[in-house]
Amino acid sequence: MNNIIIHDVCLRDGLQSEQQIVPFEKKIRWAEELIAAGVDIVQLGSFVHPEKVPQMSDTDALFNYFHEEEHRPKNVILSGLVLNEKGLERGEACGVEMYCMGVSASDTHSRKNTGMSTQDATERIISAAAQAVRAGKRVQVSVQSAFGCGFEGAVPQERVLGIIRKYVEAGFKTISLADTAGHAYPEQVTRMFEAVFDIDPAIECTCHFHNTYGLGLANCYAAMNAGVKYFESSTGGLGGCPFTKVPSGNVSTEDFVHSLQRSGSRTDIHVDALIVLAKELAAFFNREMPGLVYKSGLLSEHLKK
Amino acid sequence: MNNIIIHDVCLRDGLQSEQQIVPFEKKIRWAEELIAAGVDIVQLGSFVHPEKVPQMSDTDALFNYFHEEEHRPKNVILSGLVLNEKGLERGEACGVEMYCMGVSASDTHSRKNTGMSTQDATERIISAAAQAVRAGKRVQVSVQSAFGCGFEGAVPQERVLGIIRKYVEAGFKTISLADTAGHAYPEQVTRMFEAVFDIDPAIECTCHFHNTYGLGLANCYAAMNAGVKYFESSTGGLGGCPFTKVPSGNVSTEDFVHSLQRSGSRTDIHVDALIVLAKELAAFFNREMPGLVYKSGLLSEHLKK
Repeated sequence: MNNIIIHDVCLRDGLQSEQQIVPFEKKIRWAEELIAAGVDIVQLGSFVHPEKVPQMSDTDALFNYFHEEEHRPKNVILSGLVLNEKGLERGEACGVEMYCMGVSASDTHSRKNTGMSTQDATERIISAAAQAVRAGKRVQVSVQSAFGCGFEGAVPQERVLGIIRKYVEAGFKTISLADTAGHAYPEQVTRMFEAVFDIDPAIECTCHFHNTYGLGLANCYAAMNAGVKYFESSTGGLGGCPFTKVPSGNVSTEDFVHSLQRSGSRTDIHVDALIVLAKELAAFFNREMPGLVYKSGLLSEHLKK
Repeated sequence: MNNIIIHDVCLRDGLQSEQQIVPFEKKIRWAEELIAAGVDIVQLGSFVHPEKVPQMSDTDALFNYFHEEEHRPKNVILSGLVLNEKGLERGEACGVEMYCMGVSASDTHSRKNTGMSTQDATERIISAAAQAVRAGKRVQVSVQSAFGCGFEGAVPQERVLGIIRKYVEAGFKTISLADTAGHAYPEQVTRMFEAVFDIDPAIECTCHFHNTYGLGLANCYAAMNAGVKYFESSTGGLGGCPFTKVPSGNVSTEDFVHSLQRSGSRTDIHVDALIVLAKELAAFFNREMPGLVYKSGLLSEHLKK
């Protein structure tokens, strides 16, 4: 399992649901820490309307900063989330290398988010994705609410597979399935990814689980056992609004990497650096993060004593 | 997976590491709540020296109470942990139906706990277990530190299998593997239980994982996929001293059962009642429990709204 790829989303999915705005300089430092830790992909932010999500209003500035020759990371890809063509324009202007964009498998969720049905949103995303590919960029297309929806409840697997088939027909094989509401459970994850690989074994699957009901890492393992190699996670487990009724922390990047390293995988990633960042996040937001390893400490450190 | 068996250990493994002593009447009520919730086995306490572990000093009284005809649960087994012959004598005097007893696979841990090497402790436990079986009781023998030791580090799988072979040769096939230090990771769990079932497919395997590094439920799923049917867990995830350097909450019973019910298994267990108890534990100890579902609420409840 040495080919597992880690995509850290704490600067986007983590920060977007926080009330507190993180100063630009601090975001730069946190991004640098993620880059130095050696995760594979760092999501810097999303290109949404700055009035709607003020926490993401400096995403362009962040990309501009890291696009400068002297700040550009060598072995780490920087990704940005876009929702539509407007976001793509902004991303093109500030040198985004990898775009993440997607639709919700739940019509209710899709309409609330975008004002469009899932079907209309899928066509629009495919068109935007094609534009990004023509511009020579990496693109990851996604299906949100792929394992259940907070509004609709169960989301039929066939709905998700239908969207994936459209992506594949349009030539997009880097596909992420996000458990937006945290409903996924391991047997479902196994069934889903087996069905996805049945569509096309060459699909590069990413998964993104929330830990709402405690199953984040169990779902990651189910996905890994089904052949998934790309994982979106968040340092500290940051993510999900702490003020909602249903807390929904992300899978913690350092917990997942710590676990991978127990079996000798991804020992090149500096978990200790991720732990430092998790502690900084806890200090900044003045509350405990959902991650466990930053609290328990590294197993290897305990054994040294 | 409808044949998964839940053994709740919050009244023993949960309470034994707390500073605060729980009044007898409260323990009775919590035990009644666990029984009413419909978990299969409830561990009431351990028969250790009352001066050494004062939290467990009323274990005999608890068993006496539930041994009375009017309080005796109908469909739930009550288990008690014993460390030696003295504990067995006490257990026999107060009507224990199921004994849990074991040895540590780590010599250092074994000597610290019992003053004996693993080998000597194994012989002694087998002798005590045989005595309990002769008295017509259920016995579960265990291997502690089966996946790693806080003192010794890695514990060779062969050491664990050696103890299991001795148990099986002595006629004991109800065997629990406990991840005392929380070191287990899913690939290791899979390998371990596959090797255990290679010794004898008829072994009734129990697993007991701690969530020290976040892998509790992921390890449960690895064990379940390898064929394990018995799970020890703790309501609220209570367990592991909150004052140690390495916090080590148990797998939360309600989180695990909530997850099983997502795939239609063990829908007979009242998770809502377990959530009530988890909230009572949090209120009594005046801190958040490690479990997630008692905080997030039941998924089925969210979908009703």
